[in-house]
Amino acid sequence: MTMTPPDSRPDSALLDISPQEYRDRRGRLARTLQQEGYGVMVVFGPTRVSYLTGFYFAATERPVAAIITDEGECTLFIPSLETGHVQQQCPELGEAVIYPEYPGGGSGEHPLQTLGRELRARFPQARALAADLDGYEARWGYRGPRLSQVAGVPVHERLELIDDARALKSPAEIALIREACRWGDYAHALMQRALKIGSDEILVSHETSLQATRDMLGALGQRYVPKAREGLPANTMFIRGRNTANPHGLHQVGGVQAGDTLVTGAYGVVGGYESELERTMFVGDPTPEQERSFADMLAAQDAGMAALRPGRRCSEVEQEVRDVLEARGALPYVRHHTGHAFGMEGHEHPFLDLNDHTEIRPGMIFSVEPGIYVPGLGGFRHSDTLVITETGAERLSLYPRDLQSLIVPVHAG
Amino acid sequence: MTMTPPDSRPDSALLDISPQEYRDRRGRLARTLQQEGYGVMVVFGPTRVSYLTGFYFAATERPVAAIITDEGECTLFIPSLETGHVQQQCPELGEAVIYPEYPGGGSGEHPLQTLGRELRARFPQARALAADLDGYEARWGYRGPRLSQVAGVPVHERLELIDDARALKSPAEIALIREACRWGDYAHALMQRALKIGSDEILVSHETSLQATRDMLGALGQRYVPKAREGLPANTMFIRGRNTANPHGLHQVGGVQAGDTLVTGAYGVVGGYESELERTMFVGDPTPEQERSFADMLAAQDAGMAALRPGRRCSEVEQEVRDVLEARGALPYVRHHTGHAFGMEGHEHPFLDLNDHTEIRPGMIFSVEPGIYVPGLGGFRHSDTLVITETGAERLSLYPRDLQSLIVPVHAG
Repeated sequence: MTMTPPDSRPDSALLDISPQEYRDRRGRLARTLQQEGYGVMVVFGPTRVSYLTGFYFAATERPVAAIITDEGECTLFIPSLETGHVQQQCPELGEAVIYPEYPGGGSGEHPLQTLGRELRARFPQARALAADLDGYEARWGYRGPRLSQVAGVPVHERLELIDDARALKSPAEIALIREACRWGDYAHALMQRALKIGSDEILVSHETSLQATRDMLGALGQRYVPKAREGLPANTMFIRGRNTANPHGLHQVGGVQAGDTLVTGAYGVVGGYESELERTMFVGDPTPEQERSFADMLAAQDAGMAALRPGRRCSEVEQEVRDVLEARGALPYVRHHTGHAFGMEGHEHPFLDLNDHTEIRPGMIFSVEPGIYVPGLGGFRHSDTLVITETGAERLSLYPRDLQSLIVPVHAG
Repeated sequence: MTMTPPDSRPDSALLDISPQEYRDRRGRLARTLQQEGYGVMVVFGPTRVSYLTGFYFAATERPVAAIITDEGECTLFIPSLETGHVQQQCPELGEAVIYPEYPGGGSGEHPLQTLGRELRARFPQARALAADLDGYEARWGYRGPRLSQVAGVPVHERLELIDDARALKSPAEIALIREACRWGDYAHALMQRALKIGSDEILVSHETSLQATRDMLGALGQRYVPKAREGLPANTMFIRGRNTANPHGLHQVGGVQAGDTLVTGAYGVVGGYESELERTMFVGDPTPEQERSFADMLAAQDAGMAALRPGRRCSEVEQEVRDVLEARGALPYVRHHTGHAFGMEGHEHPFLDLNDHTEIRPGMIFSVEPGIYVPGLGGFRHSDTLVITETGAERLSLYPRDLQSLIVPVHAG
């Protein structure tokens, strides 16, 4: 693993989604709406709004929505305090519907009532509205009516009309995720170098994140486009010891000890798109029990990566992974499915799960991360980022996976 | 402002909410349910689940719920992978309802169907269920039915039955917020010392956050109890220049320049409770225009803090702030209301807004942060944390507010 930061690529293009691609996304949704017989869709999910418009914002108790017609026209519904952000980020969109404040400011009207009034005035012929969700999610201190209580017509919750399209990444999206993977790999290498006896989970994770971010921003310069308060663009973390036997282990106070199993994570964020990378590591030479569970996990991940190809179902991948673990006697230690799609969010639909029969298609991005969790011993999980190609899957996170590469020397304490 | 980290207090008690307090919260909700005629309430909001049980977790597409009866009994509904966390964090709770995985694992049953089946079996006489939300929020890749589609009885969305109680903080909660404020003040002082010409928003913010966290964890030691992947427990940030004219300004690449207005933020997180502190700063001596807007903002914040006392309505505080700004000719630059409650989340109900007529009561926590945003010039906003006492309000964030204390010297570049 090189410790030199990846070179900035020679071209000077922004690492971002183009205005044309946002128009294409809205055009695709418009065609879907026509097929499904809807004249308009109201989109509340903050990530879906960003996906369709390029408008990124701090999602709070103040509702935001994108109103998309079956002709691809888009009107944003925003609080007054977001006006400037819309002008900066989406200058090509038409006039927004602006409400003064939540829960109402001086108007005395709840924002959802304002939205309902606008929808009734703009679409008097609509007999039903599509929406991703029937109202704004109750984020922070938000309280309010459902959309169906203010729209005057039935609301059909159809978030899959957007999210099924989101699962098929464009070349531009894949390029951003590929770049994010390079920085995730780099950040993980920095963390591995920093780990030693006594390392504190919270401090080492953030020290390494900060160093990786410094190097990343230095290399990418003005090509890097920050999105809404996303935190550090290069991130690392780890949990240690028996706490790893919980799949989503919480941080503990206290330092790394000899004999610990570590479960790590590192990711980059570029243009609003994330990567995923996780590794199982050992502090000093592993015991035979640790070594056996590591081998079981690695065999399962091999099977999962080999099983990923177009035309198969997500559930088939999960079944093949479980077959491998069952043959090795490790099935009782499984606590979650093999992986998930992702991109703009850490997990996205679909899932590599026995109960998800979505067809795998080129352009999808998956984590492959079967884990085994042995009580009293620890957790064992690698996770990698893969993109589905025309014939199989390409691994975009290139960090070493073999046991010998993942041992923290104990003499370094 | 002292640059010495606050001393760890002499007592050795954990900085955390006690198991007894969680039982008291459930008992209070149970009495409310009795009064309202509900036998059971289903709670999906992750923060509300934590508030009622002490169970903190990484909220994902896997639904989690707390089922609370009118006798105060609590059953958690969790995915298999959270079993260990529940045992660690809530050993006193009874057996949980555990589903294998989302979207279904091997059972082929959607988790919400499992929940509906359990509710029908456990509460066959219920004619309606209370719930904070009618189903799990569509977080990440989640898709699923509404609770009302699987429960067999009507569902009444009544999140206020919990959130109205959350607004009245206990002495233990106030003590945690007070401690968080000390670290927010300290972190802000570190950031102010670090700021100079050329400072990068993302890097300086995180460098200071990391140093403040290091000092905080060192001082608090084992008394500090990390909650679910909350990020750094001491945090700072700032935005600069004309970008501050947007209330929730996004980070920019590029460094601090002479003449910039800065809008900063810093907060601590202790035992899952946050503080809030924001300051308007200037790089070099302010112009007369900057000075005038600063004075307008400060007068408005003074008015807001003076107006906060028990027995008044939130809307009255907002009106008094606006009266002050109107008299000074600054009302056209207002883009948001004066403040909000908070504690476990960054914003909570109620809001200091013309349309929120909630009565202010002792134990409530508010930010007071009237802001003015002058196009082409910048944004001007201080925010402080106040707790309502029996007779008025006490400021818990003690960072200097006067202009002279908030100037970044330009010769330091």
